[in-house]
Amino acid sequence: MLRLGMVGGGQGAYIGNIHRLASRLDGQWQLVAGAFDVDPERGRAFAISQGLDPARSYGTYAELIAGEAGREDRVDAVAICTPNFTHYPIAKALIEAGFDVICEKPLTATLEDAVALEKLARESGRFVGVTYTYSGYPMVHEARVRVARGELGAIRTVQVEYPLEWMATAIEQSGNAQAAWRTDPKKNGRGGSIGDIGTHAYHLAGFVTGLTLESLTADLATFVGGRALDDNAHVMMRYQGGARGLLWSSQVAIGNSNGVRLRVFGEKGSLQWFQEQPNELVFTPLDGRVQIIKRGADDLSEDARLRIRTPPGHPEGYLEAFANLYAGFAEAIRARQEGREPSLLGQNLPLAYDGLKGVAFVEAVVDSHEAEGQPWLTPVAV
Amino acid sequence: MLRLGMVGGGQGAYIGNIHRLASRLDGQWQLVAGAFDVDPERGRAFAISQGLDPARSYGTYAELIAGEAGREDRVDAVAICTPNFTHYPIAKALIEAGFDVICEKPLTATLEDAVALEKLARESGRFVGVTYTYSGYPMVHEARVRVARGELGAIRTVQVEYPLEWMATAIEQSGNAQAAWRTDPKKNGRGGSIGDIGTHAYHLAGFVTGLTLESLTADLATFVGGRALDDNAHVMMRYQGGARGLLWSSQVAIGNSNGVRLRVFGEKGSLQWFQEQPNELVFTPLDGRVQIIKRGADDLSEDARLRIRTPPGHPEGYLEAFANLYAGFAEAIRARQEGREPSLLGQNLPLAYDGLKGVAFVEAVVDSHEAEGQPWLTPVAV
Amino acid sequence: MLRLGMVGGGQGAYIGNIHRLASRLDGQWQLVAGAFDVDPERGRAFAISQGLDPARSYGTYAELIAGEAGREDRVDAVAICTPNFTHYPIAKALIEAGFDVICEKPLTATLEDAVALEKLARESGRFVGVTYTYSGYPMVHEARVRVARGELGAIRTVQVEYPLEWMATAIEQSGNAQAAWRTDPKKNGRGGSIGDIGTHAYHLAGFVTGLTLESLTADLATFVGGRALDDNAHVMMRYQGGARGLLWSSQVAIGNSNGVRLRVFGEKGSLQWFQEQPNELVFTPLDGRVQIIKRGADDLSEDARLRIRTPPGHPEGYLEAFANLYAGFAEAIRARQEGREPSLLGQNLPLAYDGLKGVAFVEAVVDSHEAEGQPWLTPVAV
Amino acid sequence: MLRLGMVGGGQGAYIGNIHRLASRLDGQWQLVAGAFDVDPERGRAFAISQGLDPARSYGTYAELIAGEAGREDRVDAVAICTPNFTHYPIAKALIEAGFDVICEKPLTATLEDAVALEKLARESGRFVGVTYTYSGYPMVHEARVRVARGELGAIRTVQVEYPLEWMATAIEQSGNAQAAWRTDPKKNGRGGSIGDIGTHAYHLAGFVTGLTLESLTADLATFVGGRALDDNAHVMMRYQGGARGLLWSSQVAIGNSNGVRLRVFGEKGSLQWFQEQPNELVFTPLDGRVQIIKRGADDLSEDARLRIRTPPGHPEGYLEAFANLYAGFAEAIRARQEGREPSLLGQNLPLAYDGLKGVAFVEAVVDSHEAEGQPWLTPVAV
Ligand SMILES: NC(=O)c1ccc[n+]([C@@H]2O[C@H](COP(=O)([O-])OP(=O)(O)OC[C@H]3O[C@@H](n4cnc5c(N)ncnc54)[C@H](O)[C@@H]3O)[C@@H](O)[C@H]2O)c1
Ligand SMILES: NC(=O)c1ccc[n+]([C@@H]2O[C@H](COP(=O)([O-])OP(=O)(O)OC[C@H]3O[C@@H](n4cnc5c(N)ncnc54)[C@H](O)[C@@H]3O)[C@@H](O)[C@H]2O)c1
Ligand SMILES: NC(=O)c1ccc[n+]([C@@H]2O[C@H](COP(=O)([O-])OP(=O)(O)OC[C@H]3O[C@@H](n4cnc5c(N)ncnc54)[C@H](O)[C@@H]3O)[C@@H](O)[C@H]2O)c1
Ligand SMILES: NC(=O)c1ccc[n+]([C@@H]2O[C@H](COP(=O)([O-])OP(=O)(O)OC[C@H]3O[C@@H](n4cnc5c(N)ncnc54)[C@H](O)[C@@H]3O)[C@@H](O)[C@H]2O)c1
Repeated sequence: MLRLGMVGGGQGAYIGNIHRLASRLDGQWQLVAGAFDVDPERGRAFAISQGLDPARSYGTYAELIAGEAGREDRVDAVAICTPNFTHYPIAKALIEAGFDVICEKPLTATLEDAVALEKLARESGRFVGVTYTYSGYPMVHEARVRVARGELGAIRTVQVEYPLEWMATAIEQSGNAQAAWRTDPKKNGRGGSIGDIGTHAYHLAGFVTGLTLESLTADLATFVGGRALDDNAHVMMRYQGGARGLLWSSQVAIGNSNGVRLRVFGEKGSLQWFQEQPNELVFTPLDGRVQIIKRGADDLSEDARLRIRTPPGHPEGYLEAFANLYAGFAEAIRARQEGREPSLLGQNLPLAYDGLKGVAFVEAVVDSHEAEGQPWLTPVAV
Repeated sequence: MLRLGMVGGGQGAYIGNIHRLASRLDGQWQLVAGAFDVDPERGRAFAISQGLDPARSYGTYAELIAGEAGREDRVDAVAICTPNFTHYPIAKALIEAGFDVICEKPLTATLEDAVALEKLARESGRFVGVTYTYSGYPMVHEARVRVARGELGAIRTVQVEYPLEWMATAIEQSGNAQAAWRTDPKKNGRGGSIGDIGTHAYHLAGFVTGLTLESLTADLATFVGGRALDDNAHVMMRYQGGARGLLWSSQVAIGNSNGVRLRVFGEKGSLQWFQEQPNELVFTPLDGRVQIIKRGADDLSEDARLRIRTPPGHPEGYLEAFANLYAGFAEAIRARQEGREPSLLGQNLPLAYDGLKGVAFVEAVVDSHEAEGQPWLTPVAV
Repeated sequence: MLRLGMVGGGQGAYIGNIHRLASRLDGQWQLVAGAFDVDPERGRAFAISQGLDPARSYGTYAELIAGEAGREDRVDAVAICTPNFTHYPIAKALIEAGFDVICEKPLTATLEDAVALEKLARESGRFVGVTYTYSGYPMVHEARVRVARGELGAIRTVQVEYPLEWMATAIEQSGNAQAAWRTDPKKNGRGGSIGDIGTHAYHLAGFVTGLTLESLTADLATFVGGRALDDNAHVMMRYQGGARGLLWSSQVAIGNSNGVRLRVFGEKGSLQWFQEQPNELVFTPLDGRVQIIKRGADDLSEDARLRIRTPPGHPEGYLEAFANLYAGFAEAIRARQEGREPSLLGQNLPLAYDGLKGVAFVEAVVDSHEAEGQPWLTPVAV
Repeated sequence: MLRLGMVGGGQGAYIGNIHRLASRLDGQWQLVAGAFDVDPERGRAFAISQGLDPARSYGTYAELIAGEAGREDRVDAVAICTPNFTHYPIAKALIEAGFDVICEKPLTATLEDAVALEKLARESGRFVGVTYTYSGYPMVHEARVRVARGELGAIRTVQVEYPLEWMATAIEQSGNAQAAWRTDPKKNGRGGSIGDIGTHAYHLAGFVTGLTLESLTADLATFVGGRALDDNAHVMMRYQGGARGLLWSSQVAIGNSNGVRLRVFGEKGSLQWFQEQPNELVFTPLDGRVQIIKRGADDLSEDARLRIRTPPGHPEGYLEAFANLYAGFAEAIRARQEGREPSLLGQNLPLAYDGLKGVAFVEAVVDSHEAEGQPWLTPVAV
């Protein structure tokens, strides 16, 4: 088993608990250390409540680094599950102290930080995985493989969206912790919905199609009064080679719990994947019938099979997808430790450069909007 | 019964037959005269094959006008079911000869013609209905009424799309008549997919929300080699008052037979209507459950009820929607003949000004694209 | 055009209006005579309100027979749209007077009447069509053809159901005319839900599979207090050759508007057709993918194509299905008048013998229930 | 953490791995001992491959009992994941040796064994949980609570089905281990599809509705040549108090991966839960709209909330449901160990008596079929 440390994800936090559940599923990771909370005291108490060794129940990430650095059984990697603006200092400190890192998205809150962090990751040789969750779903891998194999021919247009409803009113003003920092430009970064979830949609589209963004033009809106950042974003995209894309992210789209939806249209067919029915890929060949490719079907790619735990008809979901990222990170980290190439499971993972691309995309979207859509902009990293 | 004449819609034509079926459904219209084909001989033969009086089986629309003008039992209205570029001369001649007109969309192939025709309609006092089909569906009326009543609160964003797959290859080069003129700028106008179907999506969004477009920015693409017009269009829209919209039209979206889909998000709820499941409206109130409003439900508006012929669970479709337009046109024309206000059925119909707005929208989209998206453009009529 | 007469279907009646709309759609039938109401005065007034010649606005079906018999332009066929118990006397009188008949289901209210009517039809040589509506849907024909072609191999089991919700409370006690006679054994016959809608489900299953029922065992229930007939029926069926079936009909299944659903499983594949999404057939081959066969797809059978009026993606529904029955009846009647074989459109129609089978099925279900399910019963006609 | 032992579930086995994944998810169970295979050597090797202590990698369940009995840190419970006919001897031996047991369904292969085992469980005071998987889903609990609260009023009819496709051909003859023992009456018991999956459907219906079966009549079929047991079962059920039920199980229903579907109709509303979309409950109140109750919605019962790990829109599935059973078993076992009442999580669990009812149901179905459906039979335990 690999030893996992965690920063953030304390009492009442959202994503940290998902990391804990997911990392446990396959029995490959054991959580052994953590600095879970911005409040050191609460963080230590929480660590102990999770059954951690009090000696490894840290108050701050600095303590964690100091405490783990000297141990024989030091953590193999640390997951960063804190608000966006803290990713950079925490990741930097961890990398510089020689730890592998699993960082939440967006990689950082500013483009400057993202550029610096990606450079540091590259030059240090540390492993830096970024939890673009949706790329953990087996049927998303299946889609990627089918596009890469040419089953759709040249891609023409990509429709991707990520609407949510939870911020349809000003919940940040009535004590919702998650909404509070997400609407604060200093903690969140410049992109509201586009930075929080649009970045997932952008990554998903690129991950499946393999396309590289060429330029974009965008329109942001803030619908909830008193909010400093966008809560709805529309983006038109042009990919290298001529494909086009349309991206919508929204935090105010009533009726949408977590509506990640991707549709890819090529000259020979189309693929559709909706996160709320993640076990299916809808495939239509040119002049053929709409077909359902089920998770677990006999003709799935090896890439998808590796990420499946139950037979077709037995739904798998979000935790399993997240667990697939953890399984992939485990393999990639082990391969480095053992000085070998990772197996398929450790490939096609979201890494630091993907994180940088995501931040560059968000920045370009905001820039485009502020420039009133003119001219079409090219993100600094694509 | 009202007497109907038709121009276009001859042997092998698409929409003319739909007009014939739909106008017949309620027993309020009788087709009595026609100039059905660009080839006069074929047109006359077709008219006779349809059981028309040979005396009213005309070779050209000019003959039809001449022949009908002098009759006691002259047609009450003439439906124009010809390719776009002929709408203007035909409609103009009919109006000037004193006929009411039911014109296919887009109203005309050029903005100049649309402006002129709308002016002519207004000044002549003739009835000019435009067959924006989707506004004939009862659940689209229901959506419109619910938005107008404030059930969604202020509208925030509108997602509307109209993808098709039938032109995913160059069928215009192998004898498909409908594709041939639609890809010829002279016959179709400047907007390919945006002019052919984007105009439906634009009308539908405006019809349901009651919003007025303020400006737009657009990106067109032509994916099929040798095609002179766009076959895929992405449009970002800003409505007066701050609402935003995203519109996608495509003629190359494999897997989509006739994928008209509208989603409207407001501060108090959302509505969703998909044409391929037209008997349902999906409604979600803020903090409430997703609900299915069925066609025929007890609490529907009078506007919707009037346009329903069967109980819930008995699917109604495209022809019934089209028949609703014809029922509305009949009521509006009768009301004029009788010098009274039309009943509810004769209200909220797509008329010449809606047709003009549609053409202005298409022109602005093409202009925006040609200007590389800058600046945000305001159509001449909104 | 063929000339249609109608008995029943007066003011406020349900199915008569559907017959009028459907018969009009293709311009092949003209309603010219009617005795629309059990109240002669109301019937005549209604006829006139429908634009009929007062001379052909009859008070009773006897008057209609007398009046039409002597005319040159007498009706070609008469549609019977009255409550069940009147079908037999009306149909008998019409046939004996030499009229072709289109009779609503169930053919009669008693088995005795059904046997007699079928015999009369056979011996008289008159055309007797029965409006088993669901066999008018093009995708039901498509299913039938695919089964007949062997695409499913030998059929194993058939799951068919017809749940409704409208009689979930005792609406018959508060003035609902349709519910009132349906819950009166004298007017309706012995089978409540099973006679009213179970008979549709039984016909649909047999129509698509071509299977002949061998025996059945059934369990009826009456859930609404004060009701004399079943409002929920469960039936287990054995078909000749070994296939099995399960049939459920209910008038009290809240949430179901008109839930006709058929699933057929064979050794080589399965087919599924749900009436509320009638434009699709879901097909799964052994070891293959779930596929959507769309109405209008290129590879449809001629049988289905003939019954389609719009392209794929343009929903067709209940009225179009009903119109297909009328189109078929028209072709069958014309073929007889012209002494020729009917074309494909005039074949595979529900006729008197199908009506008899339906009544025999209902009677066997009630008998089985009353005998507490023992022994498995064979209907008199299968 | 509780210590788990396992019998069965070795290399290539199906359900044992699910138990391992599910028991791990919440970090409450640790697998520490196992006799995983019918082949002792393979079993020991597999145990070691799973990281177990070689001292606790047993060759047989007898060895496991002997080995664990003497340990301080002996297992808290043992999961039985072997073919049906072995459940009884293994469970008996474990209980007699004082171990708590988690037993796969069906509880035993014969009614005699089930009666004996249930008695033993009762009298010994040992915990015996039975993994009726579908009762682990949060939305199934939600349905149960809503029925119990009276939201549907008195239940009228229950439609439950469990179709599968994997045994549509004679895969048992070509080396499929799972199919081989399932088609062998000695190893599986008398009920083929009804014993394997019908028992799930029966439990699910009873679990949600709280109804007690009164009698049943059934029809079994064997469609695949050479098979000794039914592969398709139809059952009509009468519940105490007058409700009715229809149950279908099939191993040959092409197109169905794992089609567990439950629909419950009461006098005041209906509920629908489909396992392949497990995160939704479809609710329709009398005279109201069809509504989607989402997993994670604000107004869920405490019973459901306790069994949820992610927010609405983040799909949970089969493993999470299974993990909920394990979480419940953990709470129930701890409560016994601590001599207190279990919290809500440890209530409403499938226990030995539920297992007995399941076996009694299967036996009654087979008896009814063999008696040609006469008379309606009452299972020995309901
Ligand atoms: N991958 C996904 O789908 C996904 C989903 C949700 C959130 N996220 C990302 O996860 C991150 C956290 O989001 P969340 O919604 O869980 O936030 P949250 O507010 O629920 O939790 C943040 C946690 O971090 C702790 N924390 C803050 N600063 C800290 C510090 N300096 N040291 C230690 N702990 C500190 C807080 O005490 C809290 O426990 C964000 O970057 C967010 O974008 C990703
Ligand atoms: N409302 C809708 O949803 C909808 C759908 C399809 C088409 N349309 C519109 O309907 C119009 C026709 O489209 P279509 O697909 O049916 O075209 P089509 O090519 O199938 O038919 C055009 C018909 O017009 C006839 N015609 C051409 N010029 C004529 C003339 N000068 N005089 C008389 N007849 C003439 C042709 O002979 C042919 O019969 C177009 O404007 C199109 O945009 C609308
Ligand atoms: N095919 C289908 O799907 C379908 C659907 C609904 C009804 N039906 C069948 O249609 C028939 C009518 O049902 P409904 O729901 O329309 O009934 P209804 O009560 O709505 O209408 C019956 C009509 O028949 C008239 N009538 C009664 N006795 C008459 C007589 N002796 N002479 C003339 N008119 C008479 C009544 O005045 C009334 O106008 C029934 O047999 C029913 O089973 C079939
Ligand atoms: N809850 C559910 O949804 C569900 C699903 C599948 C199977 N099951 C049940 O689980 C049980 C196992 O089914 P499966 O499909 O996993 O079977 P399987 O054939 O895949 O696995 C059975 C395993 O038991 C081992 N085994 C057999 N006899 C043994 C013995 N005496 N000692 C130790 N190990 C022994 C075999 O070597 C094998 O590893 C059955 O009772 C089945 O009904 C339940």
